[in-house]
Amino acid sequence: MIKVAICGYGNLGKGVEKAISNPANQDMELIAVFTRRDPKTIRSVSGVPVISINDMGKYTDTIDVMILCGGSAKDLPEQGPKIANMFNTVDSFDTHAKIPEYFGKMNNSSLNAKKVSIISVGWDPGMFSIARAYTEAILPTGNTYTFWGKGVSQGHSDAIRRIKGVKDAKQYTIPIESAIERVRAGENPELTTREKHLRDCYVVAENGADLDRIEKEIKEMPNYFADYDTTVNFISESEFKERHSSMPHGGFVIRSGNTGDNKQIVEYSLKLDSNPEFTGSIMVAYARAAVYMYKNNQFGSKTVFDVPPSFLSTESAESLIKRLL
Amino acid sequence: MIKVAICGYGNLGKGVEKAISNPANQDMELIAVFTRRDPKTIRSVSGVPVISINDMGKYTDTIDVMILCGGSAKDLPEQGPKIANMFNTVDSFDTHAKIPEYFGKMNNSSLNAKKVSIISVGWDPGMFSIARAYTEAILPTGNTYTFWGKGVSQGHSDAIRRIKGVKDAKQYTIPIESAIERVRAGENPELTTREKHLRDCYVVAENGADLDRIEKEIKEMPNYFADYDTTVNFISESEFKERHSSMPHGGFVIRSGNTGDNKQIVEYSLKLDSNPEFTGSIMVAYARAAVYMYKNNQFGSKTVFDVPPSFLSTESAESLIKRLL
Repeated sequence: MIKVAICGYGNLGKGVEKAISNPANQDMELIAVFTRRDPKTIRSVSGVPVISINDMGKYTDTIDVMILCGGSAKDLPEQGPKIANMFNTVDSFDTHAKIPEYFGKMNNSSLNAKKVSIISVGWDPGMFSIARAYTEAILPTGNTYTFWGKGVSQGHSDAIRRIKGVKDAKQYTIPIESAIERVRAGENPELTTREKHLRDCYVVAENGADLDRIEKEIKEMPNYFADYDTTVNFISESEFKERHSSMPHGGFVIRSGNTGDNKQIVEYSLKLDSNPEFTGSIMVAYARAAVYMYKNNQFGSKTVFDVPPSFLSTESAESLIKRLL
Repeated sequence: MIKVAICGYGNLGKGVEKAISNPANQDMELIAVFTRRDPKTIRSVSGVPVISINDMGKYTDTIDVMILCGGSAKDLPEQGPKIANMFNTVDSFDTHAKIPEYFGKMNNSSLNAKKVSIISVGWDPGMFSIARAYTEAILPTGNTYTFWGKGVSQGHSDAIRRIKGVKDAKQYTIPIESAIERVRAGENPELTTREKHLRDCYVVAENGADLDRIEKEIKEMPNYFADYDTTVNFISESEFKERHSSMPHGGFVIRSGNTGDNKQIVEYSLKLDSNPEFTGSIMVAYARAAVYMYKNNQFGSKTVFDVPPSFLSTESAESLIKRLL
């Protein structure tokens, strides 16, 4: 039995908890949830104890792997290296530009503790990265395209919520179908930012707020919206709660490659009803791999590129060959 | 420089040769082509020497990895274990029911020679197997569907050619779009053989042959055609050569999974202008992995499930993280 704990109990932590409770993951047992908040204010869905992150050090002998479910902006850069110095870890660090630096720190901690940390696990980075790596290795000539959506971007939703007069907001990233079709047809187009994705915003404004100003501020916001065709929809709070509370997402990785004159198109796509539950499920499979690599003395930091598919499975090599090869 | 040789010089062997000649595979060098036929009757496209398979033993010191391009029915079961006793190998053995037995023999040879053999490399088995393994590990609850085509099935084309009065034939396997759509929609349908694929046959008959009899024999052939909706088109030899000489293929692996009530759909698909060139390109990437695993003393037989994505790439871990994670 692999003894697992969760650090950070937001949507992602709950997604991990749900994945561990799937009877198919019968080799795993959830031991505890760790939190920065006052543990008394939180009850876990599964009923496992909720413990202060400050007491984590007492559990090094009872937990095989810690799944870090904090955010990439503030939580993981601070918590990650400390926790990796005590436990095998899996996290979903996704601030792309800072991954090399984060990898270095996690690697130092894990090597020092003779533990394993698998970083940046999820679907992008994660499954999409794997799709890119396989297809670029097998089709080294060509172009790789990544499209995201339709799905909720947390970062863009947050950015709208910081605008004065905005009570709540959700932003959907929408891939432009005609662009995907051109890529699928092997045209190898050069696509600008605006040609790949639309941004569709649903905003609950405060009473009496200046809607024109809010819309203008959204559409002109640099980096987030200025380079995109953006639509802004003002809706009531009740409609917002009714129609925009789920967290769907998805996307496409398309390798438009060739072997000489012959086109070879590989596509990997996701259509997700729940982004955090899907990400949580991936992290649980990699938690299994982390423990396996730890038992094989493969200490240090790893990414999804370093983990063979077989390490993610509960099945024996014989069964995988027979059933899935 | 990884020194590569090809054993078997049909369509697949030529696909491998073409992949090695891609400047992106600059870490590899093709040394020779080995053949069962009289080497004097064959010229390689790249100009490398063509050598009798009987003389292979003289080259154990000059070749890092042998890519086996013979067929699964007769060539590989006989050649594979002998060659794996001398060289690191990669093959595309695809007789599904016999893979465990073949794996055992190859493993014995490779362990005995302290070499590595990666078996059943290609797209199915191969990339499709990986797609199935990843998605079943990360979404253990759900159904996996594999559709093939539109593409040429060599086995079915051969079966038609064995019918009396048939001069030449090509059979296209066609996935049924409405079935794929039901799977993509998360319906989790139970699909019969007939509901998943159509079989479309193009036949050149000998002068005066009984076309009605040929069509009947095709449509009623057990295992190959009887369980499918099959169409038979008789065409002239010139049309056959003009319109049915390429080898396109493709297919879809769809995991229709769920996390509790939430549907999570993962799809991996291929659209290939040239099946042998794509398969050859995959084998070349795994040849790199075989040499890498050999240098790391990971002797014995492996499948695609045992090989981390990073082993397939010419790039450093740092570069993969920066560019593709």
